[in-house]
Amino acid sequence: MNKLLKRILLTVFLSGIFISANSNDKTIKIPVPPRPDGATDLIGFSLDPIDTVRVGFVGLGMRGADAVERFTYIPGSKIEAICDLVPERVDSSISYLKRHNIELPATYSGEENSWKALCENPNVDLVYIATDWQHHVPVALYAMQQGKHVAIEVPSAFTLEDIWALIDTAESNKLHCTILENCVYDDFELNTLNMAQNGLFGEILHTEGSYIHNLEPFWDRYYNNWRLDYNSKHRGDLYPTHGAGPAFQLLDIHRGDKMNTLVSMDTKVAGIPLWLEKKGREVPENYKNGDHTMTMIKTENGKTIQIQHDVVNPRPYSRMYQLTGTKGFANKYPIEGYAFDADQLSEDSIPDHENLSYHKFVTDEQKNTLIDKYQHPILKEIGPKAKEVGGHGGMDYIMDYRLIYCLNNGLPLDMDIYDLAEWCAITPLSEISIENGSAPVEVPDFTRGAWNKVKGYRHAGINRETTKP
Amino acid sequence: MNKLLKRILLTVFLSGIFISANSNDKTIKIPVPPRPDGATDLIGFSLDPIDTVRVGFVGLGMRGADAVERFTYIPGSKIEAICDLVPERVDSSISYLKRHNIELPATYSGEENSWKALCENPNVDLVYIATDWQHHVPVALYAMQQGKHVAIEVPSAFTLEDIWALIDTAESNKLHCTILENCVYDDFELNTLNMAQNGLFGEILHTEGSYIHNLEPFWDRYYNNWRLDYNSKHRGDLYPTHGAGPAFQLLDIHRGDKMNTLVSMDTKVAGIPLWLEKKGREVPENYKNGDHTMTMIKTENGKTIQIQHDVVNPRPYSRMYQLTGTKGFANKYPIEGYAFDADQLSEDSIPDHENLSYHKFVTDEQKNTLIDKYQHPILKEIGPKAKEVGGHGGMDYIMDYRLIYCLNNGLPLDMDIYDLAEWCAITPLSEISIENGSAPVEVPDFTRGAWNKVKGYRHAGINRETTKP
Repeated sequence: MNKLLKRILLTVFLSGIFISANSNDKTIKIPVPPRPDGATDLIGFSLDPIDTVRVGFVGLGMRGADAVERFTYIPGSKIEAICDLVPERVDSSISYLKRHNIELPATYSGEENSWKALCENPNVDLVYIATDWQHHVPVALYAMQQGKHVAIEVPSAFTLEDIWALIDTAESNKLHCTILENCVYDDFELNTLNMAQNGLFGEILHTEGSYIHNLEPFWDRYYNNWRLDYNSKHRGDLYPTHGAGPAFQLLDIHRGDKMNTLVSMDTKVAGIPLWLEKKGREVPENYKNGDHTMTMIKTENGKTIQIQHDVVNPRPYSRMYQLTGTKGFANKYPIEGYAFDADQLSEDSIPDHENLSYHKFVTDEQKNTLIDKYQHPILKEIGPKAKEVGGHGGMDYIMDYRLIYCLNNGLPLDMDIYDLAEWCAITPLSEISIENGSAPVEVPDFTRGAWNKVKGYRHAGINRETTKP
Repeated sequence: MNKLLKRILLTVFLSGIFISANSNDKTIKIPVPPRPDGATDLIGFSLDPIDTVRVGFVGLGMRGADAVERFTYIPGSKIEAICDLVPERVDSSISYLKRHNIELPATYSGEENSWKALCENPNVDLVYIATDWQHHVPVALYAMQQGKHVAIEVPSAFTLEDIWALIDTAESNKLHCTILENCVYDDFELNTLNMAQNGLFGEILHTEGSYIHNLEPFWDRYYNNWRLDYNSKHRGDLYPTHGAGPAFQLLDIHRGDKMNTLVSMDTKVAGIPLWLEKKGREVPENYKNGDHTMTMIKTENGKTIQIQHDVVNPRPYSRMYQLTGTKGFANKYPIEGYAFDADQLSEDSIPDHENLSYHKFVTDEQKNTLIDKYQHPILKEIGPKAKEVGGHGGMDYIMDYRLIYCLNNGLPLDMDIYDLAEWCAITPLSEISIENGSAPVEVPDFTRGAWNKVKGYRHAGINRETTKP
C-alpha cells in the first residue's frame, strides 16, 4: 500500500471519529462575533447624571403617541423632538401638548428618512423608538452613531445580526441601549420579584412567561399591515419579551447565570387563515407563524424557563408569569397566588401561620399581608402616581419614570443592552430550532464573557428592604 | 491514480454527503421492532362478552387495597383472588371482605413469586396489577402468558423494551392490556372531552397536562423506599400518565393522529437533597431526577402537547389540563374555566350570550349551563354512584366500572395497549432527550402502522349526544 493510500485511509478513519463526535452533539452551534476593537462590556454601565433628559420620540402610532402624553408627567425629562412619517400623527401630538401648555418640541415628518434629522438634533439626549418593528434597529443604530442613548419598543430586534449590531454599537460608543419592556413593572411581578430577592421562594429553579393575547381586534391597526405581514413570514416566538422579561429577572440572567440552550416547537397554522376567510380576505400563501409556540430554555446554573406565544386563538389574556422555587411558588394567571413551605415564613409574618401548606395557595388574607410587607420599593415610591397617570395599569409610567430617574442620577438602567439582546434573541433562536425539527440551539453569550461579573439582579438606587422572611 | 484509490476517494466523498444529511437531522431515531409472527394490531380490539369478570389482584399496598374495596361495588365482577408479598396486607383485605359479607377470594402471599400462582389460577379472567413499579411488567407478561387480560397501575412500564414486550405479548395472545389511569375520568376532563367531541373548541391545536404534586408526605410510605430509589436513578418525566391521558385523548392519538417528536428538559436537582438533609438522612450520591421536567411533543397533524413533572417543590397540586382550540379554550388548574369565540355558541345555548368574549373566561352561570348541557354520558350514568363509593372523587370507581362494563359487553376498552404504550413512553423518551442535551427524539409508532385506522377517540357503548353547539 503506498503512502498516499495510507494517508487517505487515515483521513477516512479520523473523519469517522470526527463525525461520530459531531453527531452525538445534537445542539446547533451559534457563533459569537468578536468584540470590536476599543469596545468594552457594559455590565453595570452608567454615565454622569443628566439633569434634564431631552427626549426625541420616533414613531407616534399606538405606543409612541401615548408615550409623549405620559412624558408630560415624568420629572427630569423634556419632550425635545417628535417624529412620524405621517404628518397627522405629529399634529395630533402637538395639539395634545398645546392643550396641556407644554413647551412644543421640534417636529420631523413627511419623509421616510425624517427620523434621521431627529437623531441628528444636538439637543436630543435620548431617542425613544416606538416605530413599526422594521425601523427599530435602523433608527437605534443611527441614533447611537450620533451619540444618543436609545430606548426601543418591544420586540427591539428580530435577527441575531441586528442584536449584535446594537450591542457592538452601544459597546463601541459607550451608550445606553435599553428595551421598553413595561411588563417587568406590573404590581404582581414587582412585588414577587422583591419577595424572591428576599429569599421567600428559596432557590428559584424554574420560571414561565408568555404572550397569550388574541390580536384579532388589533391586526388592522398596524400601518400597512406590517405586523400580520411579519407573522406571515416567520415561524417562532415573535413576541417573547413580555414573558421573558420578568422570568429572566427572577433568574438573574447575566448577573450570575446565563442561558445555554433553547428548544422551540410550534403547532400548525390555523387561526389566521380562518379569520381572514371569515372576513372575506385573501389568505397569504404559505403563512408561516404557527398558532401556538413553546420555548424551553436551560441555564448554566441548571434552571429552566418556559416561554409561550399565541396571538390567534380565543384565550383569555395571559403572560403566565410563574415561578417554582425550593421553598415557594408564585402564579399570576388566571389567578394571583402564592404557596410556601410552612417552615419558610415566620409565625409573626403571616396570619393563620399554622395552616400554611405547600399543597395549596395561601389565603387572600395571608397574600395581602405578604404583599403589604414586601411591596416593591418602586411601587411604594411611585405606585399611586403611576396608577393616576395610567398606561396599562401604571406599568408604562413606571417604565418611563425609572428610565429617566436612572439617567438623572447617573445610575445603571433597569434593563441593559444584554437584557434587550437576551429577551429578543428568543425570536431568531426559536425560529432556528423550529426550522430544524425542534433541535436544541446554543444561546450565544451576548456579554461575551461578562455574564458572571455581577451577582443578582437589582434595581439601581432603590433602598431594598432586607428583612428576613 | 489506481482504481482502489478512486474508490476510496469516492467513498470519502459519499460519506461526506451522508454525514451532512445526517447531521442536518438532529432527531434521535428510535427503532421499531418487527411485529411477531402471527400477531396483529389490537386497534378497536374486543372479545366476546364476559358475564362476570373474575379479577385477581396483585399488590395490596396503597392502591391495591382500595381497589379490592371498590370492586365490592362494581357490577359484573367478582374478587376471585388476591395477592401480596406481605401476609398482613392479604389478611387486612380479607377482614374487610368478611366484614362486608363478600365471598372470600383465593389468597397468595409470603413468597416473592406468589403472584405467579395467582396468574395461573384458572378461575381468574383479569389480573389487576397494583404492585410497586418494578413488578408491573413481569406480572403483566406472565399473566398474559397464562391467557389472562391485564390492567396495570400507572406508570405501567418504564422502558421501551418493556413497552414493546407488553405490546408483543398482548398482540400475540389477543388479550386486553390496559392502563389503570384514573385521571381521564375526572368530571372536568370528561365534560370537556364531550364538549371537544361536539366541536365546541373548534379544531384542537394544543393540550397540556402535568403531575405537579409534592410527595414529601408520601415518599416514606413506599415499600423499601422503592419510589425514591427509582427517582434517584433516572432523569426524565417518571410519572407522565396523569397529564398525558386526558391530553392525548383530546387529540385522538392513534385514532387519526400520532406523536412524531418529543423534546424534554429538566432543572437541576434541589428539593430531595434539601428534604433528606432536613430529616437528617443520607442523600443518595448522584441523585438524578431533576426537580422540574418539561416535555414538548409534536404530532403528525401538527398539534402540540406539553407535559410537566414536579414532585418535590412546594406547589399546589396540578394536572394542568389545558386545551387550546381554534374556537375555544379550557383550563382546569388553578381554576376551572372556559373561553369561546362568541360566534361559536348559539344564542339559546348560553345565558348572556352577547357578552361572550374570547378574551375572558365565561361566567360561572354560563359555565354551569354548558356543563349541564354537555355533561359526559358516563357521568350521567354513574357519576352519583361514583361519588358515593369514592376514590379520588369518584374517578377510581368510574375507571373500574368502565373496565368491567366493557368486558361484560364485549366492547373495546377505553384505554388500549397503545394508550398504555404512548403515555408510558414519555418516561424513557424524555430520559433519552434530556441525556442528549434536549435533543428531539423520534416517537416510535407503537401501532406499527395502524394509527390511522380509527378516526376519533370514543368511549365504547355510550350514546353520545350529537347536539351541535
